[in-house]
Amino acid sequence: MTTPDPTPFSNTEYDRRLSLTRTAMAQAGLDSLIVTDPSNQAWLTGYDGWSFYVHQAVVVPLEGMPFWWGRRQDSNGAVRTVNRDRTGVEFYTDDFVQSTERHPMQDLARKLAARDIKTARIGVEMDNYYFSAKAYTTLVAALPDSDIRDATALVNWQRAIKSDEELDFMRKAARISDKITQLAIDRAEPGVRKNELAAEITAAGYTGVDDIWGDYPAIVPLMPSGTDAAAPHLTWNGDVMKKGEVTFFELAGCYRRYHVPLSRSVMLGQPPEHIKRGEGALIEGLEAGLEKARAGNRTCDIANALGAVMDKAGIERGARCGYSIGLSYPPDWGERTMSLRPEDQTILKPGMTFHFMPGLWMDDWGLEITESILIREDGPAEPFCNIPRKLFVKD
Amino acid sequence: MTTPDPTPFSNTEYDRRLSLTRTAMAQAGLDSLIVTDPSNQAWLTGYDGWSFYVHQAVVVPLEGMPFWWGRRQDSNGAVRTVNRDRTGVEFYTDDFVQSTERHPMQDLARKLAARDIKTARIGVEMDNYYFSAKAYTTLVAALPDSDIRDATALVNWQRAIKSDEELDFMRKAARISDKITQLAIDRAEPGVRKNELAAEITAAGYTGVDDIWGDYPAIVPLMPSGTDAAAPHLTWNGDVMKKGEVTFFELAGCYRRYHVPLSRSVMLGQPPEHIKRGEGALIEGLEAGLEKARAGNRTCDIANALGAVMDKAGIERGARCGYSIGLSYPPDWGERTMSLRPEDQTILKPGMTFHFMPGLWMDDWGLEITESILIREDGPAEPFCNIPRKLFVKD
Repeated sequence: MTTPDPTPFSNTEYDRRLSLTRTAMAQAGLDSLIVTDPSNQAWLTGYDGWSFYVHQAVVVPLEGMPFWWGRRQDSNGAVRTVNRDRTGVEFYTDDFVQSTERHPMQDLARKLAARDIKTARIGVEMDNYYFSAKAYTTLVAALPDSDIRDATALVNWQRAIKSDEELDFMRKAARISDKITQLAIDRAEPGVRKNELAAEITAAGYTGVDDIWGDYPAIVPLMPSGTDAAAPHLTWNGDVMKKGEVTFFELAGCYRRYHVPLSRSVMLGQPPEHIKRGEGALIEGLEAGLEKARAGNRTCDIANALGAVMDKAGIERGARCGYSIGLSYPPDWGERTMSLRPEDQTILKPGMTFHFMPGLWMDDWGLEITESILIREDGPAEPFCNIPRKLFVKD
Repeated sequence: MTTPDPTPFSNTEYDRRLSLTRTAMAQAGLDSLIVTDPSNQAWLTGYDGWSFYVHQAVVVPLEGMPFWWGRRQDSNGAVRTVNRDRTGVEFYTDDFVQSTERHPMQDLARKLAARDIKTARIGVEMDNYYFSAKAYTTLVAALPDSDIRDATALVNWQRAIKSDEELDFMRKAARISDKITQLAIDRAEPGVRKNELAAEITAAGYTGVDDIWGDYPAIVPLMPSGTDAAAPHLTWNGDVMKKGEVTFFELAGCYRRYHVPLSRSVMLGQPPEHIKRGEGALIEGLEAGLEKARAGNRTCDIANALGAVMDKAGIERGARCGYSIGLSYPPDWGERTMSLRPEDQTILKPGMTFHFMPGLWMDDWGLEITESILIREDGPAEPFCNIPRKLFVKD
């Protein structure tokens, strides 16, 4: 084995995770749970690999050993990455892959029976990228006596409060975030090609900091310029950066699948009035939100504090201003549980982590200044990163 | 607009694509089609952006203008990237995002009604990452009078034969593939950290070749070493490369979302007998398969030609040996239609493109030597890349 530490967390940590999950399963009245979200699979078992483009799952029975299940060739990756004392490994043969005649979920139903998994009430992640409509209808047909229930985000919610081991990983990711954000700020100049800057940023992230080797973030660098910065999810092209344009960089350092996203914006030339007003509102709004980001308050308190500043500045955002973060796989580095918005009433607890993300995406301009934060026992939230909270002006 | 060429293809090309799709829709008896696969959305309309982590779609009615539909903030990206003369833009508000109270598909159902889209017989992509089980059940509930049919891969199949414009993009991607594969071969040495090599490879890919700027591939570099090479989808870590180990590099250059994957393997030190035997079988098998990869033959002919060589060498692969390629988004650079395997009987036609991919993933070693190929009018297939077809031994 060349991988020195295939399961990056302690056995105690994996036991904690399984125990939390089973408590939630019992509360939901589930006999077993089919976990298709790769982030949840990794969190529960350690499984790691870019194999989520085919059907795979971790099955958690309420009692007995969970098992990873996937394509035969990926079971080679499973035995190398999962916590073997706590996780079985099952596979389906390659003729199930992208076949129009058979579906992997037919195989999974057989594996459930072979392992005597209780299937009276099974939870599935109904709204997940990796549990397709066809996976669902196939499973329903294959298990006609089962009550198949929606358990979307059941595991995700157990991930909300980070352990010390996880926070250590996130602090390492934050060091990478600082490095690549500073690099983007330093390198942004008129005439620099966007794709070459994306190359430098990505390489710096993978290289990491000292012994902290960089993993791939769940999203590539987002770095639109000028009027394109109105669109938050445009990626790069071969254009050059231009004087007079603002570019935002939404980036994340990633250490062993744990992400700490951060956005900063760079203005090449002197900023026009509306950009300056946006910067002022974002900084004031972030400060107001951070002040409310305390254990015992609610997620909406952060959003409302920001919203009051935006209202005062006459800026209509019309979008949530953040989401919980941690372990993730493409296509999203969010945890898909809590959102920072007025209707989300979750009580903040120590160890919760968020990307507080009040991006401005107007009709013909955009601006992002954000912070990834940790809810502490006492006092306001702790930002993970150390880049000055401002618009960087390079003239 | 800073984007000089928001729709990279000609109007003729978009008209060709829509026409092909509508013919297939008519044959399938569909009034309209909901396209959730981001690759299909881009192929039909030009839409581009890393926004597929929220629900979005392109709706194609049998008659009348198609429209892109997604999150409000991403409609800013849609108006900048879609072919506006041929595509409408609709959005849902942010309170639909990751909500437990409402689902974007409820909004889509209303948009269909508002646009008078015929919904008696609607096709959906049932087995797609981006059409979740919940999206399906929500749509079924919102459209009780509609016959919602499985149209998985209906659009993907129209993409099988590449136009000259697309082949131009793929040839550009191939130049990047050559560059990054050669770089991986050149840089692989004992003591090189895997993450740093992944950084170099990725940066070289994004930088591209001359004016051919690099886009992000749909999969990150896969480059396991030694016994880990048994597992095809392990990504990197911070370990160093070691003498005595073989590492395979499965990489793809990407130009404007078009991919040309290529794998080569590097042995640090002299290869043991089983690796040499594997190399010989792969090269002979590739040659045999390429010879059969001719217009008029079938996909299975390629697989069977390879299989005969493998049988002779006593190597049991147990996996398909390739798939169609072209435009793609994460998590997969395959087109998810044709597979190179004995049961796939598709007739090969000029303009089809495949990753002919006979990887060996044994219990404790692995080896990959592959070719991306174009089916020609006459003669055997044309490989896109120009890297010698062999195991690279560095001693």
